[in-house]
Amino acid sequence: MRRAEARVTAEVPLRAEVVVDLGPRAYPVVIGAQVLDELGPRLAAMGLRGRAGLLTTERVGSIYGARVVASLGGAGFEPVVVRVPDGEEHKNLAWLAVVYDRLVEGGLERGSPIVGLGGGVIGDLAGFAAATLLRGLPSVLVPTTLLAQVDAAIGGKTGVNHALGKNLIGAFHQPRLVLADVETLETLPRRELLAGLAEVIKYGAIGDAALFARLEEGVGELIELRSEVLVPVVTACARQKAAVVAQDEREERGGRAVLNFGHTVGHAIETLTGYKELLHGEAVAIGMVAAARVSQSLGRCGSEPVERLVRLLKRAGLPTDIPRGLAPAALALAMRADKKSAGGRIRFVCLEAIGRTAFVELTAEEIANRL
Amino acid sequence: MRRAEARVTAEVPLRAEVVVDLGPRAYPVVIGAQVLDELGPRLAAMGLRGRAGLLTTERVGSIYGARVVASLGGAGFEPVVVRVPDGEEHKNLAWLAVVYDRLVEGGLERGSPIVGLGGGVIGDLAGFAAATLLRGLPSVLVPTTLLAQVDAAIGGKTGVNHALGKNLIGAFHQPRLVLADVETLETLPRRELLAGLAEVIKYGAIGDAALFARLEEGVGELIELRSEVLVPVVTACARQKAAVVAQDEREERGGRAVLNFGHTVGHAIETLTGYKELLHGEAVAIGMVAAARVSQSLGRCGSEPVERLVRLLKRAGLPTDIPRGLAPAALALAMRADKKSAGGRIRFVCLEAIGRTAFVELTAEEIANRL
Repeated sequence: MRRAEARVTAEVPLRAEVVVDLGPRAYPVVIGAQVLDELGPRLAAMGLRGRAGLLTTERVGSIYGARVVASLGGAGFEPVVVRVPDGEEHKNLAWLAVVYDRLVEGGLERGSPIVGLGGGVIGDLAGFAAATLLRGLPSVLVPTTLLAQVDAAIGGKTGVNHALGKNLIGAFHQPRLVLADVETLETLPRRELLAGLAEVIKYGAIGDAALFARLEEGVGELIELRSEVLVPVVTACARQKAAVVAQDEREERGGRAVLNFGHTVGHAIETLTGYKELLHGEAVAIGMVAAARVSQSLGRCGSEPVERLVRLLKRAGLPTDIPRGLAPAALALAMRADKKSAGGRIRFVCLEAIGRTAFVELTAEEIANRL
Repeated sequence: MRRAEARVTAEVPLRAEVVVDLGPRAYPVVIGAQVLDELGPRLAAMGLRGRAGLLTTERVGSIYGARVVASLGGAGFEPVVVRVPDGEEHKNLAWLAVVYDRLVEGGLERGSPIVGLGGGVIGDLAGFAAATLLRGLPSVLVPTTLLAQVDAAIGGKTGVNHALGKNLIGAFHQPRLVLADVETLETLPRRELLAGLAEVIKYGAIGDAALFARLEEGVGELIELRSEVLVPVVTACARQKAAVVAQDEREERGGRAVLNFGHTVGHAIETLTGYKELLHGEAVAIGMVAAARVSQSLGRCGSEPVERLVRLLKRAGLPTDIPRGLAPAALALAMRADKKSAGGRIRFVCLEAIGRTAFVELTAEEIANRL
């Protein structure tokens, strides 16, 4: 037994680094246990100094704020802390104005970094504040949710919501560093952890059959947050996200659209349920099953990948069925109104096999009729 | 006489184009009489279509709005017009939120252009809205003040003011086209025209002795808005601004700082007078004379360029003396608080000759003591 344990440890390192290769704007995503305390020294090593904005939520700040402030202070930074209430409903212009006020009053100058400590909401808000204060400050993201560690923190999408739509106000602004401490997931509410798992499963389904197989074997260990499983899984996802971003930074070439797998129907469900009943990852789980079924119905794949996807999502405690009461006609309307729909045509991501996709141009009605 | 007139017309074309050479983001600055009506066809020729945001002020919109809307409509665009009250005090987050609301409600989509028709305030606001709506829309600037035509519209600086400082919130976002119709200057209040002339004289002083000499000869004709004088003068300024921007787009290499000639003391005067008594160009006129005197006092230049500068500014109807009551100690304090001052040191732009400058590192006190 001892030998077997030692072998596992040697095979699965507890820290990894993925580089998002964007030439002069390349940056590392560091994934590991207890990397949180490296924040200050790493920023100092990057040549940053002086005041540092630290954006976080009330919940995350109460758990990790003091540790992060200590890490920054120990490296000679003067942190200017701004706490925003938890929840997507605070990712708006009004809270952005509060953030601007606090950071400007706190004396941030040209070159001062802004750190976002929290989930996707904080990352988007901190990143957008960094994109727009003093015409651009360096941002650093410290994601504390699984969703943000594998997806939102990587790729430079920043912004706030507008009453008429999510993320309508925003900018591309790549961070200078992403520090994903998997131990912070221990304090994440279980439902949010599972919702993040939906995006992990998505990476397996669209581009990494080995990751998918690993999840089929060990999704239970992942939910138990065993670092030796978490680190390689988060790393595999970050590597895929980094590759897609490096190839299509601003969604101009189309390659980044593969990440929309499950999101066409998922977004429609979120719109129709008012973003209240389901977490984003839960809607994506349902959307992925829907996309797989559409793919099968089009003859793009057989029943095996669909069944494997449904089985894995269920084992991860995620929903797989479209909520009762959402008629295909309503879903079609919502899909057609999506900002990614151009002239009624949708570039739908079909599943061809576990780990392989294909784009198929469909109308919202063609999708809805096959659900 | 006839022959002479014909010769003048042939020598001085009534339209010119300057390219801001930023590689894949290069764009033309078109300068001429009646180029306003080319807006719609030019946008269409760039492959843009559908809805087009049109930001303007109440004053400028009432004069040129209908013509621009007709040009856009004639080229197949559906303009979404937003009018903002005139004045720098409306370049803030609150009005930006109004602009976002109107443009989103108006149905702007990915790829929809935003046109800014007006002076520097509108250009900054339209450019920032374009930088941040749907993570970046193309912007097109139609400057209608002399200051905006020769300076603000070129170079991609966008943003809004914060209560604690001008332009603290902003982004670099290069326009896709700048259309400078010199005939729109006919409706510009005379005081604003003269204030813009200060920046024109600045271009001559810092890098274009021929332009300076031309102004010494014909500043009267320029103030009379004779197109055959205006077009080449605006073009010479735009060419210089374009060259500086192409060489130092984001103020990272330092070259763009030459444009700060006259602005160190000018900004201090604006700060101390609360941006109320003097227009920006008027403060810059005073600041240029101050900078020239500091240069002379440092032995950087003789009395001749200082005297030529003072004489030309006076002939252009611009102030040249620091307002009574502004003590050197107060000016030093204001210069030290400037966001461009780093650790108390200021990279001061000295005049060496008409058309030539040099950077000298000085403290705020060293500058103030030589005024």
